[in-house]
Amino acid sequence: MDDDVVPIVEELRRRLPQVSAAEQGQGKEEACAQDGEGGEENEFPFEIRALEALFEAICSFLDARTRELETSAYPALDELISKISSRNLDRVRKLKCAMTRLTIRVQKIRDELESLLDDDDDMADLYLSRKLDASSSPTSSSDAPYWLYGSPNTGSKRHKSSRVSGTTVQRENDVEELEMLLEAYFMQIDGTLNKLATLREYIDDTEDYINIQLDNHRNQLIQLELFISVGTVCMSLYSLVAAIFGMNIPYTWKAPGHEHVFKWVVIFGGMVCASLFLSIVSYARRKGLVGS
Amino acid sequence: MDDDVVPIVEELRRRLPQVSAAEQGQGKEEACAQDGEGGEENEFPFEIRALEALFEAICSFLDARTRELETSAYPALDELISKISSRNLDRVRKLKCAMTRLTIRVQKIRDELESLLDDDDDMADLYLSRKLDASSSPTSSSDAPYWLYGSPNTGSKRHKSSRVSGTTVQRENDVEELEMLLEAYFMQIDGTLNKLATLREYIDDTEDYINIQLDNHRNQLIQLELFISVGTVCMSLYSLVAAIFGMNIPYTWKAPGHEHVFKWVVIFGGMVCASLFLSIVSYARRKGLVGS
Amino acid sequence: MDDDVVPIVEELRRRLPQVSAAEQGQGKEEACAQDGEGGEENEFPFEIRALEALFEAICSFLDARTRELETSAYPALDELISKISSRNLDRVRKLKCAMTRLTIRVQKIRDELESLLDDDDDMADLYLSRKLDASSSPTSSSDAPYWLYGSPNTGSKRHKSSRVSGTTVQRENDVEELEMLLEAYFMQIDGTLNKLATLREYIDDTEDYINIQLDNHRNQLIQLELFISVGTVCMSLYSLVAAIFGMNIPYTWKAPGHEHVFKWVVIFGGMVCASLFLSIVSYARRKGLVGS
Amino acid sequence: MDDDVVPIVEELRRRLPQVSAAEQGQGKEEACAQDGEGGEENEFPFEIRALEALFEAICSFLDARTRELETSAYPALDELISKISSRNLDRVRKLKCAMTRLTIRVQKIRDELESLLDDDDDMADLYLSRKLDASSSPTSSSDAPYWLYGSPNTGSKRHKSSRVSGTTVQRENDVEELEMLLEAYFMQIDGTLNKLATLREYIDDTEDYINIQLDNHRNQLIQLELFISVGTVCMSLYSLVAAIFGMNIPYTWKAPGHEHVFKWVVIFGGMVCASLFLSIVSYARRKGLVGS
Amino acid sequence: MDDDVVPIVEELRRRLPQVSAAEQGQGKEEACAQDGEGGEENEFPFEIRALEALFEAICSFLDARTRELETSAYPALDELISKISSRNLDRVRKLKCAMTRLTIRVQKIRDELESLLDDDDDMADLYLSRKLDASSSPTSSSDAPYWLYGSPNTGSKRHKSSRVSGTTVQRENDVEELEMLLEAYFMQIDGTLNKLATLREYIDDTEDYINIQLDNHRNQLIQLELFISVGTVCMSLYSLVAAIFGMNIPYTWKAPGHEHVFKWVVIFGGMVCASLFLSIVSYARRKGLVGS
Repeated sequence: MDDDVVPIVEELRRRLPQVSAAEQGQGKEEACAQDGEGGEENEFPFEIRALEALFEAICSFLDARTRELETSAYPALDELISKISSRNLDRVRKLKCAMTRLTIRVQKIRDELESLLDDDDDMADLYLSRKLDASSSPTSSSDAPYWLYGSPNTGSKRHKSSRVSGTTVQRENDVEELEMLLEAYFMQIDGTLNKLATLREYIDDTEDYINIQLDNHRNQLIQLELFISVGTVCMSLYSLVAAIFGMNIPYTWKAPGHEHVFKWVVIFGGMVCASLFLSIVSYARRKGLVGS
Repeated sequence: MDDDVVPIVEELRRRLPQVSAAEQGQGKEEACAQDGEGGEENEFPFEIRALEALFEAICSFLDARTRELETSAYPALDELISKISSRNLDRVRKLKCAMTRLTIRVQKIRDELESLLDDDDDMADLYLSRKLDASSSPTSSSDAPYWLYGSPNTGSKRHKSSRVSGTTVQRENDVEELEMLLEAYFMQIDGTLNKLATLREYIDDTEDYINIQLDNHRNQLIQLELFISVGTVCMSLYSLVAAIFGMNIPYTWKAPGHEHVFKWVVIFGGMVCASLFLSIVSYARRKGLVGS
Repeated sequence: MDDDVVPIVEELRRRLPQVSAAEQGQGKEEACAQDGEGGEENEFPFEIRALEALFEAICSFLDARTRELETSAYPALDELISKISSRNLDRVRKLKCAMTRLTIRVQKIRDELESLLDDDDDMADLYLSRKLDASSSPTSSSDAPYWLYGSPNTGSKRHKSSRVSGTTVQRENDVEELEMLLEAYFMQIDGTLNKLATLREYIDDTEDYINIQLDNHRNQLIQLELFISVGTVCMSLYSLVAAIFGMNIPYTWKAPGHEHVFKWVVIFGGMVCASLFLSIVSYARRKGLVGS
Repeated sequence: MDDDVVPIVEELRRRLPQVSAAEQGQGKEEACAQDGEGGEENEFPFEIRALEALFEAICSFLDARTRELETSAYPALDELISKISSRNLDRVRKLKCAMTRLTIRVQKIRDELESLLDDDDDMADLYLSRKLDASSSPTSSSDAPYWLYGSPNTGSKRHKSSRVSGTTVQRENDVEELEMLLEAYFMQIDGTLNKLATLREYIDDTEDYINIQLDNHRNQLIQLELFISVGTVCMSLYSLVAAIFGMNIPYTWKAPGHEHVFKWVVIFGGMVCASLFLSIVSYARRKGLVGS
Repeated sequence: MDDDVVPIVEELRRRLPQVSAAEQGQGKEEACAQDGEGGEENEFPFEIRALEALFEAICSFLDARTRELETSAYPALDELISKISSRNLDRVRKLKCAMTRLTIRVQKIRDELESLLDDDDDMADLYLSRKLDASSSPTSSSDAPYWLYGSPNTGSKRHKSSRVSGTTVQRENDVEELEMLLEAYFMQIDGTLNKLATLREYIDDTEDYINIQLDNHRNQLIQLELFISVGTVCMSLYSLVAAIFGMNIPYTWKAPGHEHVFKWVVIFGGMVCASLFLSIVSYARRKGLVGS
């Protein structure tokens, strides 16, 4: 995930000055605005705005890559269905690997968001600037930097237990606003994951279809080959008869005046061979081995 | 899901005037009715009726599409079993994709309903008109529009924790009534999902069956081909003998008076070939390669 | 599930008069008996006895069908292993479909029982007659008919939250007794589900075995066919030599006095063909293509 | 599971007298010992000792059978890899069925232990003798016999809710000691389950390997057969030429003085056939159908 | 897992003296430092440092083995794709088994860490030295040795319930610091598990690809063989005609002056055979059996 971080950092850099600029005069203003109930809902403190920019960058990045993947995967699969070749198979295999890697990343972001949303305390901890103001309370001052630089997801699943005391109505309001913000990104990333799941199902169904199709194709090839083998064995029989009459051993019908023998051999041989061919084919058909 | 929204919106439009009309005089009435315990149970406020209409439209829409799918899938599968052809395979593949997409949608609605039912607070928040009356309480006034336009499911999984204070007996009654209403739709959508799961199982079982059937068919084809090959090789041997005696090289039996040689060659050759055929076939049968 | 309801209803009808008869004098008696701690444990009120009869009917019905399925499935699978034919395959496929449908039904009953057992409040709500006595409490009087006619399972997963107040020691005792009763049926249905799971595993293992067996069989058929093809090609070579000497083109060895040529051609041709056969077979054996 | 109970009961019978003997004087002693904090940790009352003996018997029995299975399964699988035969396949299939049945049993014991460990109340209820002493408290006196003869696992998942009142420090200590005891068996049975899971993975991997190996083997067989077929068709062509010149139709080269024709036919025919053989093989190689 | 313990113990032995040395003067110091809020965050007591060293050793050991596996697995898989041979198949099978075993171990460590992180009480119990100081509290003094030598994971899942009383602010701080420490290792081991999951997906995708590729290869081989069979049967027909005219039976065209018969037979026979070949091939192509 190392080179993937670069565009996100750039995106963040591009967006945050603008936010900082807007932030300039607002920092204080907002600290007050929150005292009054309501205010304007988008007036989040700096750290929340950074987080929002970050999530937006990640979500749209992953969504864009998912779209790209879809754009190339569906035609590749349809092409594979119409013509199964090594080149198409290899292309689909590469797309599948790319999809697996992308799914793991999207799943991870989704899990982190879900676990962050699961715990009100962790969301409240994200209001760093507010905590700095309230730094006289010694309880959770130490983990603030942790939540910024580390990953909040693993911790958030736990300690659902205590620390309920000391939360004020103010904090409750903050958490609800942040929750709504994060939920928007959660739903976006969930939609991306859904697209990937649908794509995976489509690939799996296509593979099943190709397997059955290849098997069916092979059976039909073998059926045709069976007909040809039956033809070969019948002609072998006829050839054998001809070869027997072609042996250079003296016999009575070699003498002149036996011209009628030739006719009888040709006609009778042909009839025997044809009846052999038809009986084998009708046997196979009666057994359901070859279709109509 | 964009074009699928259209019929639902139309359905909603068709139903809501009727609801509004009935609602006209009831709005106030009901607000009072709720003060008295009991009243009539179906007398929900406007927003709940809209929600009810919405869920009914969605559930019956999805159920109808599931029925359609079942109607076309089961005959298609039975036809595929009786005759495995590319056309039937392709038809089943298309049905399977349609089923996957439909399952994902039904699953989503079911999850949303389940998570809404999981949280009493979210259900209470759905009583918007009641909240407007009680808008002096500052706690949750801000998220009312959110629940209307956004999706309630993601939020409901969370904040199971607090906000237990301030709920009155009135609210408890509301929630129970709404819960019963939503559970009816939950059970309907759960039944739809069950049908789809049964269909998927049926498709998977059919695919397994077809795979084994194709393999078994191929083995039988190869067994028949084996018999034919054995026949060919026996006749080759006989032809070889005939060809040897057909060589134009002078030898003693070419002289007249050796007519008995011909008989011996024909009879002895035929017996050798027949015994070769029988010995190979009996070897294969003894090894369990060909059935009785 | 429509026609399946009929025998259950009949079973219920057959059993409930007997229960009602026993119930006649007990209704009051029992209401008193419960005031005293202990009493006799099986003296449940009417609604619980009906529920018990219902669960017993369902559980024994499903268990009987599972036994039936087992009785026909295991021999069918063993027969399929000993002889893979279309008829046996189709029979196993039909049994598998029946098993899938039965599993879904058993799973559903089990889930409903589990979720009912999960929530003490729902179990307490099942004591309808007691609630009628205590109908002065307005909290949960409305959902009593719901629990009777609707399905209790979906609701029970939820509202684990509140309503803890107002439960008395009496109610706790009731719930424990009912819990023990329901657990007996839960364990029976769980055992049925276990049998079905074991059966499914057995079917899946058999299918895997059949797949590998069919593949192995095919490879052995192809190995035998390979031997035959090698024989054919060797005899073709010999025939070719004979055919060359059988051409009607004048040459020196056609003149009398070349009788030794015939011997040499026959002996040398035979040796070349035999060595060709052995070299191809030993090549295949060295490559590990054909077994010892 | 009926005949499997016999050895366990015997084991229990063998062990319990010894316990009972040790128990003789301890019953009272222990009841006192528990009043003092600490005591010796293994001084459990009679019912817990019986439970311990039971779990030890079951765990060691299941572990022994798992070891047996491992001892026979790994060599059988390695033998199957080195030689795929019907006998080896059937042996592995039987081992797989035995493993599935054993896994279901181990899983069940593990689930029961886990759910028992999940609920402190259920563990406290296991101290029957203590409850008899404290039988003045009416709350849970009725379910004591249930927990002994019935299965504790299903009930323990539930009623996590209430009954928190009335538990003393004494009870907490008891539960912790019992928890440590049960955890030892839980870890043993978990280890057994892990061994079975590893074995199952090994079997599945081996089956995948065998499937691919069989497919690969078949392709190599078909490749060799292809070479032989190409040889056959080339010699057929040559034979055809020879047969044409072997027809008994008068033509100019039948007259003496055309001895050079024979040479030309043999040499030219041989070159045409060899070039046909090489061109088909090089075509197949260029297409990647046959390896180097 | 017996021999794997050796390097970890050695690693532990190598690291702990250094810790002990650093610990020498700190033991007391730290006990004081914790009274003051904050202090330096890494000043954990001896037992926590030992635990940290242990987890670091395990995590880096497992991560190193995962990297090794990746280094050998990816090239082996790519080689298998480019050339499917028994040797490559066997190599990948061995790597897959190694991966399965490693995954089970990593999963176990991860589960233990997760369950330890899930329960604040268990983490607090890890501060052994602090408990020794506070050994006047009788509640949990007995299980301290247990948590050291036994495995904490199984116990931690349980008794989430009570024991909330008596925890001070001091303890809360300790737990948060330890949680941060453990989370770092949790994330490392989670990353290792993710790598293994990606590798498993890659192996599975490769196996699916190889299966389809082998099937496709076989179909192409059979297609080529079909062409050759068609060629054989056509030449058999021609040979048959030639053999018929080669029979040594007197007929009119054997008399001189019928030289034109030879030409007609050769030309007409060739045309019939060529048209038979083309008609069979075009039939197969029209049926979609052979590609362009």
